[in-house]
Amino acid sequence: MPTASMKANVFRANGKFGIAEKPIPAPGFGEVIVRVNLTTICGTDIHIVKGEYPVRSGLTIGHEAVGVIHELGDGVFGYEAGQRVLFGAITPCGQCEPCLDGHGSQCGGALGGWRLGNTLDGTQAEYVRVPFAQANLALIPAGLSDEQVILLADIASTGFSAAESGRVRIGDNVAIFGQGPIGLCATLGAHLMGAARIFAVDKNPFRLEIAQRFGATDTLLAGADPANAILEATRSRGVDVAIEALGIQETFSHSLAVLKPGGVLSSVGVYSHSLSVDNAALGAGLADKSVVTTLCPGGKERMQRLMRLVESGRIDLTPLLTHHFYLDQIADAYDLFGHQRDGVLKVAIHVHRPEAPYTLVA
Amino acid sequence: MPTASMKANVFRANGKFGIAEKPIPAPGFGEVIVRVNLTTICGTDIHIVKGEYPVRSGLTIGHEAVGVIHELGDGVFGYEAGQRVLFGAITPCGQCEPCLDGHGSQCGGALGGWRLGNTLDGTQAEYVRVPFAQANLALIPAGLSDEQVILLADIASTGFSAAESGRVRIGDNVAIFGQGPIGLCATLGAHLMGAARIFAVDKNPFRLEIAQRFGATDTLLAGADPANAILEATRSRGVDVAIEALGIQETFSHSLAVLKPGGVLSSVGVYSHSLSVDNAALGAGLADKSVVTTLCPGGKERMQRLMRLVESGRIDLTPLLTHHFYLDQIADAYDLFGHQRDGVLKVAIHVHRPEAPYTLVA
Amino acid sequence: MPTASMKANVFRANGKFGIAEKPIPAPGFGEVIVRVNLTTICGTDIHIVKGEYPVRSGLTIGHEAVGVIHELGDGVFGYEAGQRVLFGAITPCGQCEPCLDGHGSQCGGALGGWRLGNTLDGTQAEYVRVPFAQANLALIPAGLSDEQVILLADIASTGFSAAESGRVRIGDNVAIFGQGPIGLCATLGAHLMGAARIFAVDKNPFRLEIAQRFGATDTLLAGADPANAILEATRSRGVDVAIEALGIQETFSHSLAVLKPGGVLSSVGVYSHSLSVDNAALGAGLADKSVVTTLCPGGKERMQRLMRLVESGRIDLTPLLTHHFYLDQIADAYDLFGHQRDGVLKVAIHVHRPEAPYTLVA
Amino acid sequence: MPTASMKANVFRANGKFGIAEKPIPAPGFGEVIVRVNLTTICGTDIHIVKGEYPVRSGLTIGHEAVGVIHELGDGVFGYEAGQRVLFGAITPCGQCEPCLDGHGSQCGGALGGWRLGNTLDGTQAEYVRVPFAQANLALIPAGLSDEQVILLADIASTGFSAAESGRVRIGDNVAIFGQGPIGLCATLGAHLMGAARIFAVDKNPFRLEIAQRFGATDTLLAGADPANAILEATRSRGVDVAIEALGIQETFSHSLAVLKPGGVLSSVGVYSHSLSVDNAALGAGLADKSVVTTLCPGGKERMQRLMRLVESGRIDLTPLLTHHFYLDQIADAYDLFGHQRDGVLKVAIHVHRPEAPYTLVA
Repeated sequence: MPTASMKANVFRANGKFGIAEKPIPAPGFGEVIVRVNLTTICGTDIHIVKGEYPVRSGLTIGHEAVGVIHELGDGVFGYEAGQRVLFGAITPCGQCEPCLDGHGSQCGGALGGWRLGNTLDGTQAEYVRVPFAQANLALIPAGLSDEQVILLADIASTGFSAAESGRVRIGDNVAIFGQGPIGLCATLGAHLMGAARIFAVDKNPFRLEIAQRFGATDTLLAGADPANAILEATRSRGVDVAIEALGIQETFSHSLAVLKPGGVLSSVGVYSHSLSVDNAALGAGLADKSVVTTLCPGGKERMQRLMRLVESGRIDLTPLLTHHFYLDQIADAYDLFGHQRDGVLKVAIHVHRPEAPYTLVA
Repeated sequence: MPTASMKANVFRANGKFGIAEKPIPAPGFGEVIVRVNLTTICGTDIHIVKGEYPVRSGLTIGHEAVGVIHELGDGVFGYEAGQRVLFGAITPCGQCEPCLDGHGSQCGGALGGWRLGNTLDGTQAEYVRVPFAQANLALIPAGLSDEQVILLADIASTGFSAAESGRVRIGDNVAIFGQGPIGLCATLGAHLMGAARIFAVDKNPFRLEIAQRFGATDTLLAGADPANAILEATRSRGVDVAIEALGIQETFSHSLAVLKPGGVLSSVGVYSHSLSVDNAALGAGLADKSVVTTLCPGGKERMQRLMRLVESGRIDLTPLLTHHFYLDQIADAYDLFGHQRDGVLKVAIHVHRPEAPYTLVA
Repeated sequence: MPTASMKANVFRANGKFGIAEKPIPAPGFGEVIVRVNLTTICGTDIHIVKGEYPVRSGLTIGHEAVGVIHELGDGVFGYEAGQRVLFGAITPCGQCEPCLDGHGSQCGGALGGWRLGNTLDGTQAEYVRVPFAQANLALIPAGLSDEQVILLADIASTGFSAAESGRVRIGDNVAIFGQGPIGLCATLGAHLMGAARIFAVDKNPFRLEIAQRFGATDTLLAGADPANAILEATRSRGVDVAIEALGIQETFSHSLAVLKPGGVLSSVGVYSHSLSVDNAALGAGLADKSVVTTLCPGGKERMQRLMRLVESGRIDLTPLLTHHFYLDQIADAYDLFGHQRDGVLKVAIHVHRPEAPYTLVA
Repeated sequence: MPTASMKANVFRANGKFGIAEKPIPAPGFGEVIVRVNLTTICGTDIHIVKGEYPVRSGLTIGHEAVGVIHELGDGVFGYEAGQRVLFGAITPCGQCEPCLDGHGSQCGGALGGWRLGNTLDGTQAEYVRVPFAQANLALIPAGLSDEQVILLADIASTGFSAAESGRVRIGDNVAIFGQGPIGLCATLGAHLMGAARIFAVDKNPFRLEIAQRFGATDTLLAGADPANAILEATRSRGVDVAIEALGIQETFSHSLAVLKPGGVLSSVGVYSHSLSVDNAALGAGLADKSVVTTLCPGGKERMQRLMRLVESGRIDLTPLLTHHFYLDQIADAYDLFGHQRDGVLKVAIHVHRPEAPYTLVA
């Protein structure tokens, strides 16, 4: 019997990728095959296709998905085929030392927690094999659409965790540098945790508009010395929590500069270069400041918890899904998203389209 | 030179209290005399006038106030006469062991932190002497009215701290038993901290309406077996945090019954009797549940932080001020509030009225 | 081929139990069969054989063990036959909601985390099947003997967690009520966390001697009004953390009575009856006290961490192993331990003895 | 009436300092004059006399002291003349925003918490005026000598807080880079908090000997690639907590290099230059690492708590007092300590010697 095949967006070499035909995977122990409904493109995927983040040739890209359980591997219980599930970038096993110690994102060692679209075939495909399914498949409540929950799998979870790691308190002042999708979700996270005044900084006015809808009380254009503006607005007191969501020296320095003594700098940006930390900004005598880094925590418990926010109407992330494509148009989606054209924030990749002619990689 | 006198609402004996003439107090070291604009009546004040909570005869009642700095004692710096200030029930000294250990409400030993209207003359008066003024006078930002901030001094601070001590997380399910002023603020606090689903329980439909405005997603009438309803609504999972805001056995038992293993019962009700804790509810094997009690934390840092929530428009507590009186009508206010008539939640006592004829205690 | 058989200590009915012949179990997915070297008897086992804690007839009792990996089930990786392992009472799956939320002891719902010797065949046997082996088998460093680590699996982990949940700080005063094996380990845990003054209370002078070796600075006989003695010794200040390790009303009341405002009562005793909480002790106005319950957290990460304490010579739990038996003498062991004779603290059950004639249950 | 005078060690100009005659200070509101028994020299004092840390000419140096209450200012209650007290580097007011927010070390703004020997006349004198005495004078229990407690005021409190901010847990692996007085106390702090394996790194073998007495299980010479040695010793797992106690790039980099994902780098070194943070070490994808800085927390509550450790015999800091001088020999003490001769760790300055001929600054 011939193995059934599927379409998948595959990395070939630096700058080379596209839809390819692949066998539909079979589940191993503890694994589940999910038929993907909806996936997205992440900034990291852009790094991958450019060859800036190394993955093996032939890998299916993508790490955020909503789909339907297609086939259960041995040792998976409590699930059945046909259930709609959300799963994400980080797929903790739940059973290694870092997982048992509460650091699921560090599952299995350095970046081990990020598997889909990194070391395992990812979600930009008709089917995907999900490892440690028991720990990672979150059932989607009936009333919620795919579009309503897809961004919880990575972007929102990461953004919210920036606010959580920053230990935002009721009434705090918070500054978020960078209002890309993660930064916007950090803004929303700070709002959800009860921040009083939220300074959102970006160079893009459109993003600042969304920031305002997500709870920012003050929006600042990145060019116009935002650190000074924030210090003035707080009468030199500074903010209780600063969130760095861009991953560059300038925003890191600004984050530290606006931070009050005893405050927390929560960093979710990924830095390409070494950082310089100004000892004066850190504070002679240290000033009790902390720098906390957080990688998106995964696992179904968190996904379920965040879906409750959608269910209760507290958050609506769909404004972030600015553009929609079918899987066979994914090259266009990469082009648009990679060049950040047309005010794109996140693209939704709808995997199934009847009679869609797929363009295979030569 | 004769000492100037003022009007004050004074406790005489069980069931006996009223407006009396008293000398305007003079500030000692570290103290400030505030000319009171606005004060309120608290449930505890009702206990006091009934003789159920013992205070000395002659004491001025009241412990929530907004006013204007009238006179500064020695050793107070950074303030000046004429500044408008908020201060509250708990006036921590900031310098004793409990204060330095982060338990300002326990300042100086058992209930020592609550001084105004308890061991010191309180706020239902034209003037009040505030101890440890440096730690307790929070300057009110220009744009905020007295009515907008008065309830932060005790009710809202206590209610919010119920949610804070419960360690409510983004996406949590929370149940709040009792929707009096403190319970309503606990509901609002849970909402501010990012709870997804908020069950508010009370026997009074009007209060449940306010609860909904304050963020409750589900309101339940107290009589109709609310614990079971909550367990059903959460498919027997229970809530992450239960808040007891009434101080009776029934609601304590319900709080424990709906709490998931590992959850936190945050108790801000004041119990008149011994509590019985069902060992089955607590969980054979304990179930990792916690019971946390919190007395309203005081101090100007907290007041300033909470005022920022009003400034940024995140909260509006004025719907709780259902009735307004002048100081010379305070007997009527006690009567209304003490009998919980006319849907009263909190009464605002406006201290100054031109040409008001005060009725003195015989 | 006939299935190989083994000896196991089996519960039959109230008061009826003993060594029986059973098939050696086969591992399912994610499971491992361990050949047991050493096991113990827990107080809970006494309840089981008396019929006070319900288990099914035919169940093998026991939930603390050291052994050697005999056979690996599918889906288990990173282990091999012949490795010596420690595993314990709580065997969290690592993949359900409570586990992913940091409450492994609540794995799978109420008491679900405790499986061995409860809902699954336990460790008082020649072989035992360990569920979720990946999350639960802790490799034992070469230099450590079975006796040195066996008590970490339950008793010590529980006792230490009492101190951890109590959030003992450097220089704190701590009182521990009940110096049975768990209470003694709580005493040791408080010492390990830096407590300055440690009050150990028990009615048994021999146990108080061990308490002293484990770090108690003050030992008090239970009869002689220990709560008052502690209040006097601390000049009425009370202790920062009180640990209840007996599970009766008297010690619970004493724990609350000696607790300073803002302190934590950490309860690891299992109560057979409803508790009464004196509202005066809890504090009018609540006094910011917390009551925290903790069930022994399991999982290999914790076992590994605790074994490091043995490796570095910081702790020696072998004085708790006061008596040694072979598996075929387990009836005698139950008799001694059940009646708390001869100063018994914990019994070591050595499973393998050449040519031992096992007495089967009739 | 002529003002009584006293001897004090006074800063004049870069490199110029010495004993001078000064009036005995008078207490203001909330202040207390203490007759100093014992003081020390801190590394910061060396920076001051070299002109590297700017203070005003004429300032009395020194910020660690034990003495006897000489005169009480107005507004100080609960103390009386003749009581022996410990007080320290940081003198929080307890009443400003940072203090009420739990950051006493940041009292009054940047480094405001450090006053004695910085912005106020310090402790290397016969008498010193202590601000905010109520919050800062810790009564010394009768059985403890001056030498036993003097180092708690700054060095030990700072070192312990390094371990506390690092959130050391029972069984953790900890590495401490730099075994000067603060690093040694961090080592002791990690031991007190229950660390299993403690790696102490320094270039000075004598200090490593003390480190061993303070709880280090492994001592490493700084030159011999300690980071690699630690990674090897932990089989590449790294440590749970790394403490930087030197304030230079190399040890900061090493601290980050040996830190496990999810670990905490607790930094108490004071950096003279900007730090470079290697993005690879920080972890691609961030690795959930935190960098926490802590300035010695002050206040009498902490001092009392730490003195309890001395009382109960858990710690003995007197081995750090390697050299003793009288106040009139303080120039020699600075010379020895400044050049780190003769294995000096800390010098004790005994203030009172009958008939001592003081050498005045010309």
